[in-house]
Amino acid sequence: MQRYFIPPERLVSGKAFIEGDDARHLALVMRARIGDRIVVSDGRGRTVLAEIAELDKTKVTATVIEQLPADAEPTVHVWIAQSLPKGDKMETVIQKCTEIGATRIIPFLSERTVVRYDSHAEEKRLQRWRKIAKEAAEQAHRDKVPEIEAPMTWKQLLQAASDADAALFCYERENGRTLGEQLKYLFSRKAEKPVRTVLIVVGPEGGFTEREAKEAEAAGIVPVSMGRRILRAETAGMVGLACVLYEAGEMGG
Amino acid sequence: MQRYFIPPERLVSGKAFIEGDDARHLALVMRARIGDRIVVSDGRGRTVLAEIAELDKTKVTATVIEQLPADAEPTVHVWIAQSLPKGDKMETVIQKCTEIGATRIIPFLSERTVVRYDSHAEEKRLQRWRKIAKEAAEQAHRDKVPEIEAPMTWKQLLQAASDADAALFCYERENGRTLGEQLKYLFSRKAEKPVRTVLIVVGPEGGFTEREAKEAEAAGIVPVSMGRRILRAETAGMVGLACVLYEAGEMGG
Repeated sequence: MQRYFIPPERLVSGKAFIEGDDARHLALVMRARIGDRIVVSDGRGRTVLAEIAELDKTKVTATVIEQLPADAEPTVHVWIAQSLPKGDKMETVIQKCTEIGATRIIPFLSERTVVRYDSHAEEKRLQRWRKIAKEAAEQAHRDKVPEIEAPMTWKQLLQAASDADAALFCYERENGRTLGEQLKYLFSRKAEKPVRTVLIVVGPEGGFTEREAKEAEAAGIVPVSMGRRILRAETAGMVGLACVLYEAGEMGG
Repeated sequence: MQRYFIPPERLVSGKAFIEGDDARHLALVMRARIGDRIVVSDGRGRTVLAEIAELDKTKVTATVIEQLPADAEPTVHVWIAQSLPKGDKMETVIQKCTEIGATRIIPFLSERTVVRYDSHAEEKRLQRWRKIAKEAAEQAHRDKVPEIEAPMTWKQLLQAASDADAALFCYERENGRTLGEQLKYLFSRKAEKPVRTVLIVVGPEGGFTEREAKEAEAAGIVPVSMGRRILRAETAGMVGLACVLYEAGEMGG
Protein backbone atom coordinates (compact mmCIF):
# COMPACT_ATOMS: atom_id res chain seq x y z
CA MET A 1 0.00 0.00 0.00
CA GLN A 2 1.20 3.50 -0.84
CA ARG A 3 2.78 5.37 2.09
CA TYR A 4 3.23 9.08 2.69
CA PHE A 5 4.92 11.10 5.36
CA ILE A 6 3.18 14.34 6.25
CA PRO A 7 4.01 17.01 8.82
CA PRO A 8 2.48 16.21 12.26
CA GLU A 9 0.19 19.29 12.09
CA ARG A 10 -1.51 17.81 8.99
CA LEU A 11 -2.46 14.62 10.80
CA VAL A 12 -5.13 15.95 13.18
CA SER A 13 -8.74 15.35 14.31
CA GLY A 14 -9.00 12.02 12.55
CA LYS A 15 -7.98 13.47 9.20
CA ALA A 16 -4.81 13.43 7.14
CA PHE A 17 -4.20 16.37 4.81
CA ILE A 18 -1.77 15.62 1.99
CA GLU A 19 -0.53 18.49 -0.14
CA GLY A 20 2.10 19.43 -2.70
CA ASP A 21 4.11 16.78 -4.56
CA ASP A 22 2.51 13.93 -2.61
CA ALA A 23 -1.04 15.01 -3.53
CA ARG A 24 0.07 15.30 -7.14
CA HIS A 25 1.72 11.87 -6.96
CA LEU A 26 -1.40 10.27 -5.49
CA ALA A 27 -3.79 11.89 -7.96
CA LEU A 28 -1.78 11.74 -11.17
CA VAL A 29 0.83 8.98 -10.82
CA MET A 30 -1.01 6.51 -8.59
CA ARG A 31 -4.42 7.54 -10.03
CA ALA A 32 -5.97 7.19 -6.60
CA ARG A 33 -9.77 7.36 -6.26
CA ILE A 34 -12.07 8.34 -3.42
CA GLY A 35 -12.37 5.31 -1.13
CA ASP A 36 -8.80 4.09 -1.78
CA ARG A 37 -6.74 3.36 1.29
CA ILE A 38 -3.28 4.68 2.03
CA VAL A 39 -0.84 4.64 4.92
CA VAL A 40 0.08 8.02 6.36
CA SER A 41 2.79 8.67 8.92
CA ASP A 42 3.74 11.87 10.69
CA GLY A 43 7.41 10.86 10.48
CA ARG A 44 7.73 10.89 14.24
CA GLY A 45 6.39 7.46 14.97
CA ARG A 46 2.63 7.89 14.41
CA THR A 47 1.35 5.82 11.48
CA VAL A 48 -2.29 5.41 10.42
CA LEU A 49 -4.39 3.67 7.81
CA ALA A 50 -6.64 6.22 6.08
CA GLU A 51 -9.29 6.29 3.38
CA ILE A 52 -9.31 9.00 0.74
CA ALA A 53 -12.37 11.25 1.17
CA GLU A 54 -11.57 14.09 -1.23
CA LEU A 55 -8.85 14.52 -3.80
CA ASP A 56 -7.53 16.73 -6.49
CA LYS A 57 -3.99 17.19 -7.70
CA THR A 58 -3.14 19.83 -5.09
CA LYS A 59 -4.76 18.41 -1.97
CA VAL A 60 -5.93 15.05 -0.71
CA THR A 61 -7.98 14.60 2.45
CA ALA A 62 -8.16 11.17 4.00
CA THR A 63 -10.14 9.91 7.00
CA VAL A 64 -8.17 7.98 9.59
CA ILE A 65 -9.48 4.41 9.92
CA GLU A 66 -7.04 3.02 12.43
CA GLN A 67 -3.74 3.61 14.13
CA LEU A 68 -1.12 1.15 12.87
CA PRO A 69 1.59 -0.31 15.08
CA ALA A 70 4.70 1.79 14.53
CA ASP A 71 7.22 -0.99 14.94
CA ALA A 72 9.54 -0.57 11.97
CA GLU A 73 12.07 1.61 13.77
CA PRO A 74 15.27 -0.01 15.06
CA THR A 75 15.72 -0.16 18.83
CA VAL A 76 19.26 1.16 18.46
CA HIS A 77 19.73 4.53 16.79
CA VAL A 78 22.58 4.55 14.32
CA TRP A 79 23.98 7.86 13.15
CA ILE A 80 26.10 7.88 10.02
CA ALA A 81 28.60 10.74 9.72
CA GLN A 82 30.00 10.83 6.21
CA SER A 83 32.78 13.05 4.92
CA LEU A 84 31.23 14.61 1.82
CA PRO A 85 32.05 12.24 -1.05
CA LYS A 86 32.46 13.11 -4.73
CA GLY A 87 29.65 13.47 -7.25
CA ASP A 88 26.20 12.33 -6.21
CA LYS A 89 27.49 9.68 -3.81
CA MET A 90 26.08 11.46 -0.76
CA GLU A 91 22.65 10.83 -2.30
CA THR A 92 23.41 7.09 -2.50
CA VAL A 93 24.56 7.12 1.12
CA ILE A 94 21.37 8.88 2.24
CA GLN A 95 19.07 6.63 0.24
CA LYS A 96 20.67 3.33 1.23
CA CYS A 97 21.31 4.20 4.89
CA THR A 98 17.71 5.37 5.25
CA GLU A 99 16.41 2.08 3.81
CA ILE A 100 18.67 0.00 6.04
CA GLY A 101 17.66 1.95 9.15
CA ALA A 102 19.88 4.92 10.08
CA THR A 103 18.18 7.54 12.24
CA ARG A 104 20.51 10.48 11.59
CA ILE A 105 22.88 11.28 8.77
CA ILE A 106 25.57 13.91 9.23
CA PRO A 107 27.65 15.04 6.26
CA PHE A 108 30.90 16.68 7.34
CA LEU A 109 34.04 18.28 5.97
CA SER A 110 37.49 16.86 6.70
CA GLU A 111 41.00 17.70 5.56
CA ARG A 112 40.93 15.41 2.55
CA THR A 113 37.34 16.17 1.53
CA VAL A 114 37.76 16.96 -2.14
CA VAL A 115 34.34 18.35 -2.99
CA ARG A 116 34.03 22.08 -2.92
CA TYR A 117 31.66 23.28 -0.30
CA ASP A 118 29.33 25.88 -1.71
CA SER A 119 27.26 27.48 1.02
CA HIS A 120 25.06 29.28 -1.53
CA ALA A 121 23.93 26.02 -3.08
CA GLU A 122 23.72 24.44 0.36
CA GLU A 123 20.08 25.12 1.16
CA LYS A 124 18.90 23.66 -2.12
CA ARG A 125 21.07 20.59 -1.75
CA LEU A 126 19.89 19.98 1.78
CA GLN A 127 16.26 20.11 0.61
CA ARG A 128 17.12 17.56 -2.04
CA TRP A 129 18.82 15.25 0.47
CA ARG A 130 15.82 15.47 2.80
CA LYS A 131 13.47 14.61 -0.04
CA ILE A 132 15.59 11.53 -0.84
CA ALA A 133 15.46 10.47 2.83
CA LYS A 134 11.68 10.96 2.98
CA GLU A 135 11.09 8.91 -0.16
CA ALA A 136 13.48 6.16 0.95
CA ALA A 137 11.76 6.01 4.36
CA GLU A 138 8.34 5.74 2.69
CA GLN A 139 9.56 3.00 0.41
CA ALA A 140 11.15 1.08 3.32
CA HIS A 141 7.90 1.38 5.36
CA ARG A 142 9.65 3.19 8.16
CA ASP A 143 7.78 5.17 10.78
CA LYS A 144 10.32 7.97 10.98
CA VAL A 145 12.37 9.91 8.50
CA PRO A 146 16.03 10.12 9.53
CA GLU A 147 17.36 13.56 10.33
CA ILE A 148 19.60 14.84 7.57
CA GLU A 149 21.92 17.49 8.96
CA ALA A 150 23.54 20.36 7.12
CA PRO A 151 27.26 19.65 6.66
CA MET A 152 29.25 20.06 9.87
CA THR A 153 32.85 21.03 10.31
CA TRP A 154 35.21 18.43 11.75
CA LYS A 155 35.15 20.23 15.11
CA GLN A 156 31.35 20.29 15.19
CA LEU A 157 31.29 16.59 14.42
CA LEU A 158 33.69 15.80 17.26
CA GLN A 159 31.33 17.65 19.59
CA ALA A 160 28.23 15.93 18.21
CA ALA A 161 29.96 12.58 18.84
CA SER A 162 29.72 13.12 22.58
CA ASP A 163 25.91 12.83 22.33
CA ALA A 164 26.16 9.20 21.18
CA ASP A 165 26.53 6.29 23.60
CA ALA A 166 29.25 4.85 21.38
CA ALA A 167 31.18 6.31 18.46
CA LEU A 168 33.36 4.45 15.96
CA PHE A 169 35.38 5.56 12.99
CA CYS A 170 36.48 3.46 10.04
CA TYR A 171 40.26 3.48 10.01
CA GLU A 172 42.55 0.84 8.57
CA ARG A 173 45.65 0.11 10.51
CA GLU A 174 47.74 -2.78 11.64
CA ASN A 175 46.59 -4.56 14.76
CA GLY A 176 43.66 -2.21 15.26
CA ARG A 177 40.40 -3.29 16.76
CA THR A 178 37.83 -4.67 14.33
CA LEU A 179 34.24 -3.53 14.00
CA GLY A 180 33.01 -6.95 15.13
CA GLU A 181 35.17 -6.95 18.27
CA GLN A 182 34.09 -3.46 19.26
CA LEU A 183 30.37 -4.11 18.63
CA LYS A 184 30.42 -7.39 20.56
CA TYR A 185 32.17 -5.59 23.42
CA LEU A 186 29.65 -2.72 23.43
CA PHE A 187 26.55 -4.91 23.28
CA SER A 188 27.89 -7.41 25.84
CA ARG A 189 27.93 -4.72 28.50
CA LYS A 190 24.73 -2.93 27.54
CA ALA A 191 23.19 -3.85 30.92
CA GLU A 192 25.76 -1.59 32.62
CA LYS A 193 26.01 1.00 29.84
CA PRO A 194 23.04 1.12 27.46
CA VAL A 195 23.76 1.40 23.73
CA ARG A 196 20.87 3.46 22.44
CA THR A 197 22.84 5.50 19.92
CA VAL A 198 25.89 4.47 17.90
CA LEU A 199 27.73 6.92 15.68
CA ILE A 200 29.74 5.59 12.73
CA VAL A 201 32.16 8.09 11.20
CA VAL A 202 33.26 7.45 7.61
CA GLY A 203 36.15 9.37 6.05
CA PRO A 204 36.58 10.76 2.55
CA GLU A 205 37.98 8.87 -0.46
CA GLY A 206 41.54 9.66 0.66
CA GLY A 207 40.93 8.63 4.27
CA PHE A 208 41.50 10.56 7.47
CA THR A 209 44.78 12.34 8.17
CA GLU A 210 46.82 11.17 11.15
CA ARG A 211 45.96 14.37 12.95
CA GLU A 212 42.23 13.76 12.47
CA ALA A 213 42.60 10.18 13.67
CA LYS A 214 44.28 11.43 16.84
CA GLU A 215 41.65 14.10 17.41
CA ALA A 216 38.88 11.55 16.91
CA GLU A 217 40.43 9.18 19.44
CA ALA A 218 40.89 12.04 21.90
CA ALA A 219 37.15 12.75 21.48
CA GLY A 220 36.36 9.15 22.42
CA ILE A 221 35.69 7.88 18.90
CA VAL A 222 37.12 4.38 18.58
CA PRO A 223 39.01 3.46 15.38
CA VAL A 224 37.81 0.16 13.90
CA SER A 225 38.78 -1.87 10.86
CA MET A 226 35.99 -3.30 8.72
CA GLY A 227 37.69 -6.48 7.56
CA ARG A 228 40.41 -7.21 5.03
CA ARG A 229 38.71 -5.70 2.01
CA ILE A 230 38.88 -1.98 1.33
CA LEU A 231 35.42 -0.46 1.05
CA ARG A 232 34.69 2.63 -1.00
CA ALA A 233 33.81 5.76 0.97
CA GLU A 234 30.13 5.46 0.07
CA THR A 235 29.95 1.73 0.94
CA ALA A 236 31.53 1.77 4.42
CA GLY A 237 28.57 3.47 6.11
CA MET A 238 25.95 1.05 4.84
CA VAL A 239 28.05 -2.00 5.75
CA GLY A 240 28.83 -0.60 9.22
CA LEU A 241 25.14 0.21 9.72
CA ALA A 242 24.04 -3.29 8.66
CA CYS A 243 26.57 -4.81 11.08
CA VAL A 244 25.46 -2.65 14.05
CA LEU A 245 21.80 -3.51 13.40
CA TYR A 246 22.71 -7.19 13.01
CA GLU A 247 24.63 -7.23 16.31
CA ALA A 248 21.74 -5.40 17.99
CA GLY A 249 19.37 -8.18 16.91
CA GLU A 250 17.56 -5.97 14.40
CA MET A 251 17.93 -8.59 11.66
CA GLY A 252 16.50 -11.12 14.10
CA GLY A 253 18.47 -13.79 15.88
CA MET B 1 49.49 1.17 -4.56
CA GLN B 2 47.83 0.52 -7.91
CA ARG B 3 46.51 -3.03 -8.36
CA TYR B 4 45.79 -5.00 -11.50
CA PHE B 5 44.30 -8.40 -12.14
CA ILE B 6 45.83 -10.25 -15.09
CA PRO B 7 45.10 -13.70 -16.52
CA PRO B 8 47.18 -16.43 -14.78
CA GLU B 9 49.11 -17.17 -18.01
CA ARG B 10 50.50 -13.62 -18.00
CA LEU B 11 52.01 -13.99 -14.54
CA VAL B 12 54.86 -16.43 -15.33
CA SER B 13 58.63 -16.88 -14.91
CA GLY B 14 58.97 -14.01 -12.48
CA LYS B 15 57.34 -11.55 -14.87
CA ALA B 16 53.92 -9.94 -15.11
CA PHE B 17 52.69 -8.93 -18.55
CA ILE B 18 49.96 -6.31 -18.50
CA GLU B 19 48.14 -5.52 -21.73
CA GLY B 20 45.07 -3.79 -23.14
CA ASP B 21 43.12 -1.28 -21.07
CA ASP B 22 45.25 -1.86 -17.98
CA ALA B 23 48.50 -1.06 -19.83
CA ARG B 24 46.86 2.04 -21.21
CA HIS B 25 45.60 3.00 -17.74
CA LEU B 26 49.06 2.53 -16.21
CA ALA B 27 50.90 4.44 -18.93
CA LEU B 28 48.46 7.27 -19.66
CA VAL B 29 46.22 7.73 -16.61
CA MET B 30 48.59 6.75 -13.79
CA ARG B 31 51.64 8.05 -15.76
CA ALA B 32 53.71 5.15 -14.43
CA ARG B 33 57.48 5.15 -15.02
CA ILE B 34 60.05 2.37 -15.23
CA GLY B 35 60.99 1.42 -11.67
CA ASP B 36 57.50 2.14 -10.25
CA ARG B 37 55.98 -0.62 -8.18
CA ILE B 38 52.55 -2.14 -8.63
CA VAL B 39 50.56 -5.02 -7.19
CA VAL B 40 49.52 -7.70 -9.65
CA SER B 41 47.16 -10.56 -8.95
CA ASP B 42 46.15 -13.47 -11.13
CA GLY B 43 42.62 -13.26 -9.74
CA ARG B 44 42.85 -16.79 -8.39
CA GLY B 45 44.61 -16.04 -5.15
CA ARG B 46 48.20 -15.32 -6.30
CA THR B 47 49.23 -11.73 -5.62
CA VAL B 48 52.71 -10.23 -6.16
CA LEU B 49 54.58 -6.98 -5.79
CA ALA B 50 56.27 -6.12 -9.08
CA GLU B 51 58.50 -3.39 -10.51
CA ILE B 52 57.87 -1.96 -13.95
CA ALA B 53 60.74 -2.90 -16.32
CA GLU B 54 59.32 -1.81 -19.68
CA LEU B 55 56.23 0.13 -20.59
CA ASP B 56 54.32 1.68 -23.41
CA LYS B 57 50.61 2.28 -23.74
CA THR B 58 49.89 -1.18 -25.14
CA LYS B 59 52.06 -3.39 -22.94
CA VAL B 60 53.72 -3.19 -19.56
CA THR B 61 56.25 -5.74 -18.32
CA ALA B 62 56.99 -5.87 -14.60
CA THR B 63 59.50 -7.99 -12.68
CA VAL B 64 58.11 -9.86 -9.68
CA ILE B 65 59.82 -8.73 -6.45
CA GLU B 66 57.91 -10.74 -3.94
CA GLN B 67 54.84 -12.85 -3.38
CA LEU B 68 52.33 -11.02 -1.19
CA PRO B 69 50.12 -12.76 1.35
CA ALA B 70 46.77 -13.36 -0.33
CA ASP B 71 44.62 -12.97 2.75
CA ALA B 72 41.89 -10.62 1.66
CA GLU B 73 39.44 -13.32 0.65
CA PRO B 74 36.64 -14.25 3.07
CA THR B 75 36.77 -17.72 4.59
CA VAL B 76 33.11 -18.22 3.75
CA HIS B 77 32.06 -17.97 0.12
CA VAL B 78 28.90 -15.98 -0.37
CA TRP B 79 27.02 -16.25 -3.65
CA ILE B 80 24.48 -13.57 -4.47
CA ALA B 81 21.69 -14.59 -6.84
CA GLN B 82 19.80 -11.52 -7.96
CA SER B 83 16.66 -11.42 -10.06
CA LEU B 84 17.58 -8.97 -12.83
CA PRO B 85 16.59 -5.53 -11.52
CA LYS B 86 15.58 -2.51 -13.57
CA GLY B 87 17.94 -0.03 -15.20
CA ASP B 88 21.60 -0.23 -14.28
CA LYS B 89 20.95 -1.59 -10.79
CA MET B 90 22.60 -4.93 -11.57
CA GLU B 91 25.81 -2.94 -12.02
CA THR B 92 25.40 -1.44 -8.53
CA VAL B 93 24.79 -4.91 -7.10
CA ILE B 94 27.92 -6.29 -8.79
CA GLN B 95 30.12 -3.38 -7.75
CA LYS B 96 29.01 -3.23 -4.13
CA CYS B 97 28.81 -7.00 -3.54
CA THR B 98 32.31 -7.41 -5.02
CA GLU B 99 33.70 -4.75 -2.68
CA ILE B 100 31.99 -6.26 0.36
CA GLY B 101 33.25 -9.74 -0.50
CA ALA B 102 30.90 -11.92 -2.60
CA THR B 103 32.62 -14.71 -4.51
CA ARG B 104 29.96 -15.43 -7.12
CA ILE B 105 27.13 -13.35 -8.50
CA ILE B 106 24.28 -15.01 -10.38
CA PRO B 107 21.69 -12.88 -12.17
CA PHE B 108 18.48 -14.80 -12.84
CA LEU B 109 15.04 -14.44 -14.34
CA SER B 110 11.90 -14.92 -12.29
CA GLU B 111 8.18 -14.52 -12.95
CA ARG B 112 8.06 -10.89 -11.90
CA THR B 113 11.37 -9.88 -13.48
CA VAL B 114 10.34 -6.81 -15.44
CA VAL B 115 13.46 -6.21 -17.54
CA ARG B 116 13.39 -7.63 -20.99
CA TYR B 117 16.02 -10.27 -21.51
CA ASP B 118 17.82 -9.69 -24.76
CA SER B 119 20.10 -12.61 -25.57
CA HIS B 120 21.71 -10.69 -28.46
CA ALA B 121 22.91 -7.94 -26.16
CA GLU B 122 23.78 -10.51 -23.51
CA GLU B 123 27.43 -11.15 -24.38
CA LYS B 124 28.25 -7.45 -24.35
CA ARG B 125 26.45 -6.87 -21.08
CA LEU B 126 28.20 -9.82 -19.45
CA GLN B 127 31.59 -8.40 -20.50
CA ARG B 128 30.62 -5.10 -18.94
CA TRP B 129 29.54 -6.75 -15.69
CA ARG B 130 32.81 -8.68 -15.51
CA LYS B 131 34.80 -5.50 -16.05
CA ILE B 132 32.90 -3.84 -13.18
CA ALA B 133 33.67 -6.84 -10.93
CA LYS B 134 37.36 -6.78 -11.89
CA GLU B 135 37.69 -3.06 -11.18
CA ALA B 136 35.77 -3.31 -7.90
CA ALA B 137 37.97 -6.25 -6.81
CA GLU B 138 41.11 -4.25 -7.64
CA GLN B 139 39.85 -1.26 -5.74
CA ALA B 140 38.91 -3.39 -2.71
CA HIS B 141 42.36 -5.07 -2.74
CA ARG B 142 40.85 -8.49 -3.17
CA ASP B 143 42.87 -11.48 -4.34
CA LYS B 144 40.12 -12.94 -6.48
CA VAL B 145 37.56 -11.55 -8.86
CA PRO B 146 34.10 -12.95 -8.16
CA GLU B 147 32.57 -15.09 -10.86
CA ILE B 148 29.84 -13.24 -12.70
CA GLU B 149 27.49 -15.73 -14.32
CA ALA B 150 25.35 -15.24 -17.39
CA PRO B 151 21.68 -14.92 -16.35
CA MET B 152 20.14 -18.24 -15.32
CA THR B 153 16.54 -19.34 -15.53
CA TRP B 154 14.69 -19.95 -12.28
CA LYS B 155 15.08 -23.71 -12.77
CA GLN B 156 18.82 -23.44 -13.35
CA LEU B 157 19.13 -21.35 -10.21
CA LEU B 158 17.25 -23.93 -8.13
CA GLN B 159 19.73 -26.53 -9.36
CA ALA B 160 22.76 -24.33 -8.70
CA ALA B 161 21.49 -23.83 -5.14
CA SER B 162 22.20 -27.48 -4.35
CA ASP B 163 25.96 -26.75 -4.72
CA ALA B 164 25.89 -24.38 -1.73
CA ASP B 165 26.16 -25.59 1.87
CA ALA B 166 23.32 -23.26 2.80
CA ALA B 167 20.83 -21.31 0.71
CA LEU B 168 18.52 -18.51 1.85
CA PHE B 169 16.01 -16.36 0.08
CA CYS B 170 14.71 -12.99 1.14
CA TYR B 171 10.97 -13.34 1.67
CA GLU B 172 8.76 -11.28 3.92
CA ARG B 173 6.05 -13.13 5.74
CA GLU B 174 4.43 -13.31 9.11
CA ASN B 175 6.18 -15.44 11.70
CA GLY B 176 8.92 -16.44 9.27
CA ARG B 177 12.46 -17.10 10.33
CA THR B 178 14.78 -14.08 10.38
CA LEU B 179 18.15 -13.84 8.67
CA GLY B 180 19.85 -13.51 12.07
CA GLU B 181 18.18 -16.63 13.48
CA GLN B 182 19.05 -18.71 10.46
CA LEU B 183 22.68 -17.54 10.29
CA LYS B 184 23.22 -18.11 14.01
CA TYR B 185 21.74 -21.58 13.60
CA LEU B 186 23.95 -22.41 10.59
CA PHE B 187 27.19 -21.15 12.13
CA SER B 188 26.46 -22.73 15.53
CA ARG B 189 26.53 -26.19 13.99
CA LYS B 190 29.38 -25.65 11.54
CA ALA B 191 31.45 -28.29 13.35
CA GLU B 192 28.95 -30.95 12.22
CA LYS B 193 28.05 -29.34 8.89
CA PRO B 194 30.63 -26.90 7.52
CA VAL B 195 29.38 -23.62 6.05
CA ARG B 196 31.85 -22.90 3.26
CA THR B 197 29.34 -21.51 0.77
CA VAL B 198 26.17 -19.57 1.45
CA LEU B 199 23.79 -18.61 -1.34
CA ILE B 200 21.51 -15.58 -0.86
CA VAL B 201 18.67 -15.33 -3.35
CA VAL B 202 17.13 -11.89 -3.87
CA GLY B 203 13.87 -11.43 -5.77
CA PRO B 204 12.78 -8.75 -8.24
CA GLU B 205 11.17 -5.41 -7.36
CA GLY B 206 7.75 -7.10 -7.18
CA GLY B 207 8.97 -10.00 -5.03
CA PHE B 208 8.67 -13.72 -5.62
CA THR B 209 5.37 -15.33 -6.52
CA GLU B 210 3.90 -17.84 -4.11
CA ARG B 211 4.69 -20.62 -6.54
CA GLU B 212 8.35 -19.59 -6.68
CA ALA B 213 8.51 -19.40 -2.90
CA LYS B 214 7.18 -22.97 -2.69
CA GLU B 215 9.60 -24.23 -5.33
CA ALA B 216 12.51 -22.56 -3.57
CA GLU B 217 11.58 -24.16 -0.26
CA ALA B 218 11.19 -27.53 -1.97
CA ALA B 219 14.75 -27.04 -3.32
CA GLY B 220 16.04 -26.51 0.22
CA ILE B 221 16.31 -22.72 0.05
CA VAL B 222 15.20 -21.28 3.39
CA PRO B 223 12.97 -18.16 3.39
CA VAL B 224 14.26 -15.47 5.74
CA SER B 225 13.07 -12.00 6.70
CA MET B 226 15.63 -9.22 6.86
CA GLY B 227 14.11 -7.15 9.62
CA ARG B 228 11.15 -4.82 9.80
CA ARG B 229 12.24 -2.41 7.09
CA ILE B 230 11.60 -3.17 3.44
CA LEU B 231 14.82 -3.14 1.44
CA ARG B 232 14.94 -2.29 -2.25
CA ALA B 233 15.79 -5.18 -4.56
CA GLU B 234 19.32 -3.87 -5.14
CA THR B 235 19.99 -3.30 -1.42
CA ALA B 236 18.92 -6.68 0.01
CA GLY B 237 21.93 -8.58 -1.39
CA MET B 238 24.56 -6.25 0.01
CA VAL B 239 22.91 -6.17 3.44
CA GLY B 240 22.52 -9.97 3.50
CA LEU B 241 26.15 -10.37 2.39
CA ALA B 242 27.42 -7.99 5.09
CA CYS B 243 25.42 -9.93 7.72
CA VAL B 244 26.73 -13.35 6.61
CA LEU B 245 30.33 -12.07 6.65
CA TYR B 246 29.74 -10.44 10.04
CA GLU B 247 28.32 -13.67 11.51
CA ALA B 248 31.23 -15.62 10.00
CA GLY B 249 33.69 -13.36 11.85
CA GLU B 250 34.88 -11.66 8.67
CA MET B 251 34.37 -8.20 10.16
CA GLY B 252 36.34 -9.37 13.18
CA GLY B 253 34.86 -10.23 16.54
